[in-house]
Amino acid sequence: MRKKVVGVMGPGSGATEIDIKNAYSLGKEIAKNSWILLSGGRNIGTMDAACRGAHEAGGLVVGILPSKDGSDASEGVDIRIVTGMGGGRNVINILSSDIVVICGMGAGTSSEVGHAVKCGKPTILLNTGEKAEAFFKELAPEQVFIAKDVEDAIGLVQKYMESN
Amino acid sequence: MRKKVVGVMGPGSGATEIDIKNAYSLGKEIAKNSWILLSGGRNIGTMDAACRGAHEAGGLVVGILPSKDGSDASEGVDIRIVTGMGGGRNVINILSSDIVVICGMGAGTSSEVGHAVKCGKPTILLNTGEKAEAFFKELAPEQVFIAKDVEDAIGLVQKYMESN
Amino acid sequence: MRKKVVGVMGPGSGATEIDIKNAYSLGKEIAKNSWILLSGGRNIGTMDAACRGAHEAGGLVVGILPSKDGSDASEGVDIRIVTGMGGGRNVINILSSDIVVICGMGAGTSSEVGHAVKCGKPTILLNTGEKAEAFFKELAPEQVFIAKDVEDAIGLVQKYMESN
Amino acid sequence: MRKKVVGVMGPGSGATEIDIKNAYSLGKEIAKNSWILLSGGRNIGTMDAACRGAHEAGGLVVGILPSKDGSDASEGVDIRIVTGMGGGRNVINILSSDIVVICGMGAGTSSEVGHAVKCGKPTILLNTGEKAEAFFKELAPEQVFIAKDVEDAIGLVQKYMESN
Repeated sequence: MRKKVVGVMGPGSGATEIDIKNAYSLGKEIAKNSWILLSGGRNIGTMDAACRGAHEAGGLVVGILPSKDGSDASEGVDIRIVTGMGGGRNVINILSSDIVVICGMGAGTSSEVGHAVKCGKPTILLNTGEKAEAFFKELAPEQVFIAKDVEDAIGLVQKYMESN
Repeated sequence: MRKKVVGVMGPGSGATEIDIKNAYSLGKEIAKNSWILLSGGRNIGTMDAACRGAHEAGGLVVGILPSKDGSDASEGVDIRIVTGMGGGRNVINILSSDIVVICGMGAGTSSEVGHAVKCGKPTILLNTGEKAEAFFKELAPEQVFIAKDVEDAIGLVQKYMESN
Repeated sequence: MRKKVVGVMGPGSGATEIDIKNAYSLGKEIAKNSWILLSGGRNIGTMDAACRGAHEAGGLVVGILPSKDGSDASEGVDIRIVTGMGGGRNVINILSSDIVVICGMGAGTSSEVGHAVKCGKPTILLNTGEKAEAFFKELAPEQVFIAKDVEDAIGLVQKYMESN
Repeated sequence: MRKKVVGVMGPGSGATEIDIKNAYSLGKEIAKNSWILLSGGRNIGTMDAACRGAHEAGGLVVGILPSKDGSDASEGVDIRIVTGMGGGRNVINILSSDIVVICGMGAGTSSEVGHAVKCGKPTILLNTGEKAEAFFKELAPEQVFIAKDVEDAIGLVQKYMESN
């Protein structure tokens, strides 16, 4: 049976300390649940933290990289998908995930939420701020979920995985 | 001197009547100002309306199409850029525009606002709803502008063009 | 009626003097025939020469640029499509052209011939060398044409345009 | 240490019986050498055969899919990268591989050889025909290698992996 893929998307250079802590824990829990972790794969911010968390917990980590040579990859990435597309690769992040956890907010991240909703992916918002929650929840009430913390987010992913 | 490009982005099948009316007027005014109109170029919703408005006013209209054969193009499109990338082409819409007017709101459109902010493009919101305004204005206060109506939006574009 | 688009593809830094001369003449003739010229749009090699040729003859010139800011555009380009995709934009060059003239040969150019044949576009080879001619002619005998010179290439384009 | 990625590219519907047999064996040997197999990932032709070969030998298989929903994936694919880009994904196949084995020839495949040479990837041609060999070998003499059979191709990959 094909392994399920959980995408974790969030800010790079603009990530807060709490986002980075959350992303690391998300990566760890995703690995423990034997799901594949997929992210933007860069060696910075939430991407780096999620990849390291999953990698250290023995998970399989896929990074969809914006560069054309992979030199921007987090050390936690096992499989480097090198796109050469810059931020244009965001839509591939989404299309390749079964479900998406948004960990923090920023401009690039908001484009990923938009693509996720457009592509019909269940999308969990974690620490994205009240205004993002209000906007995206209104945009797609049945597809967007708000998580209180990492445990809550992982619970929502588990619930989705069990019924799909 | 290179002609300036104004991107008009907004919903396709989800466009409201007022969005379509606005998009048509935006297209018309963009043509009258001798700017190039660029949009997602499809024969539906705000894309179709903006393209027809600009075309009927004698403007030059570029459509960045998601299909791989261009069969989805609005009749108002003069130059069909055929990407075969589906919603992945949204980032090209943004990168190819000097300034972006968002006309109405939807999932795909929200990804375009995200890309626009990420790529540093001035972004004008027209009839996108209070929650989108609150979210994106907070995300990029100096880059996101709120227009009351088409006239206001065109005024903001003119002001930008004069100083760039 | 929609204007027809002729793509001219060929080497950048690896272009020979004859390729550059040919590309310039192709651009000029394409403009004189009121077709739109589309190319990779960079300010180098055959792209630059074709764009300048068409521009100087009063034609409309579209450049599909690999960069994410358009700073690599030829001065002959009227409409900059900024992809941020590097060589990944080659397939967009092809999909957006009604017919393709290959002007000289190189690695990137060979990928464009491959995409052109795959996408079913009529493809004219000009000064691509005997081995490229032999290979691509065998790959798609009814779709690949060999031109002796610029005049011959333009004649083949005219013949195609008249019957399509 | 990051696992190395071997790309196997070749025709889908146009694959010959010998190409399919070769692709299956290539996949098997790639898995036995503990390299990751990467391909276009579709459930047809050489892609399908290579993926099944590697999967059955216990390897890790990545498929870079043209569709936007992954429904075209070979059953041998472990990790589905869903691009929604059609043949535009060919360049991602190449950029994500450390070394590329071309298994048979066709239009799409020839675009991949072009991208591989352009991106500086060592490229091994297996059963691509004399004309393709002559053309690509002339295009990039030090980067393109001709393999007599699967064993020879795998030997060339091993030699490359040992020195990189």
